[in-house]
Amino acid sequence: MTYCVGLLLNAGMVFLSDTRTNAGVDNIATFRKQFVFCEPGERIIVIQTAGSLSVTQTVMAKLTEAIDEPDSAPEFSIMQAPSMLRVAEMVGQLLSDVTAEISAKVNRMSQSATASMIVGGQRKGGRERMFLLYPEGNFIEATEDTPYLQIGEHKYGKPILDRVVTPDTSLDDARKAALLSMDSTLRSNLSVGMPLDLLMLRRDECDIAEQTRIEAGDADFAAMSDAWSEALRTSFKNIP
Amino acid sequence: MTYCVGLLLNAGMVFLSDTRTNAGVDNIATFRKQFVFCEPGERIIVIQTAGSLSVTQTVMAKLTEAIDEPDSAPEFSIMQAPSMLRVAEMVGQLLSDVTAEISAKVNRMSQSATASMIVGGQRKGGRERMFLLYPEGNFIEATEDTPYLQIGEHKYGKPILDRVVTPDTSLDDARKAALLSMDSTLRSNLSVGMPLDLLMLRRDECDIAEQTRIEAGDADFAAMSDAWSEALRTSFKNIP
Repeated sequence: MTYCVGLLLNAGMVFLSDTRTNAGVDNIATFRKQFVFCEPGERIIVIQTAGSLSVTQTVMAKLTEAIDEPDSAPEFSIMQAPSMLRVAEMVGQLLSDVTAEISAKVNRMSQSATASMIVGGQRKGGRERMFLLYPEGNFIEATEDTPYLQIGEHKYGKPILDRVVTPDTSLDDARKAALLSMDSTLRSNLSVGMPLDLLMLRRDECDIAEQTRIEAGDADFAAMSDAWSEALRTSFKNIP
Repeated sequence: MTYCVGLLLNAGMVFLSDTRTNAGVDNIATFRKQFVFCEPGERIIVIQTAGSLSVTQTVMAKLTEAIDEPDSAPEFSIMQAPSMLRVAEMVGQLLSDVTAEISAKVNRMSQSATASMIVGGQRKGGRERMFLLYPEGNFIEATEDTPYLQIGEHKYGKPILDRVVTPDTSLDDARKAALLSMDSTLRSNLSVGMPLDLLMLRRDECDIAEQTRIEAGDADFAAMSDAWSEALRTSFKNIP
């Protein structure tokens, strides 16, 4: 499984993903699920992926190819797209195509291969936008009412987001909320695992503000996790 | 959907269930999912149910019939069973039979009808035990390491239980943990709904210590829910 979350704030955006991939519990590996395409100051596009690795890797490979050689597949050249909406449509179309193609193969073995994605970013002059793409290629967009999107194992980490994240949340608080949301998921589901990829963008910069990989055993993350557990227990005691 | 949780503590047991049943979002009704069979001082058996209402109602009807007329179906007379393990086996067998019977019918319509159950209780002279019964009728038992069981929409409410519940938790704290676990679930999943059924047993009493229905709009529950949200937000602020 996977857990990825993206937060769309007035101050910018925060993306956080885990890196665990498994085929059964005895075949675990680390794969990046967070991808950034950036032309600093002009355009930044972040994609996070969940689901069948064969689908997501193929989609990412085709997107990269289309960026490197825009003439070969202009319909998927996301760095040339006139808007983030168009980017979401392009990635959605590709996701749908690849899923159909791979599913046609694996269906013969009664298996399924689907994936979902979070696509977010900003183009100079445009506004920051974030989309959740379903396996069929259709998508929904983060709004003021629900300023975050999740893919993968999303339930354990939702209560904290529901309670603290609004569009006015600062980037620092949003990072904290994303990390605590991930922490709850890590504790409850073995198939979500460290290290974590964290990425932050500031609004209208169209550039990476911060990009970090948080390794297993990271002291700051462990301290935050412990402090949160302690705070929850204290809060629990103080509830009448 | 449904959310039911049972906590097995040194001090006794706590059971909490919601009451919402739905067939699609436009057909919502309230049904009791918590059932108590008690011969005070001698034996108490609590059953909570999740899944297809046609399955769970048939199982509960047959159990009740077997209690009223023990001669008609001695193999399902749970109030005569020599141990809680035997009770779990009886209910599991009946659940398996009913599921197979109903599934044979609905399979013809490409639908599925399954259910799971929490069965807990104590018999005079025996120890308190709690089981989670799967649709196939097999079961697992709550232990010191994992002193709680959940059925239905269990993920949202798991982080709080993971953090605060141990076998040494007091009954009052366990009630609070169960209610906060339910509160997180209610907030995140529309198909879990008030009112709630709460039941508490004290160890070795083989009787009901407290049984309450918490209605929508209950002032104490709302106050606890608000206090918890506030405490979470405060804790969140104080995390470095």
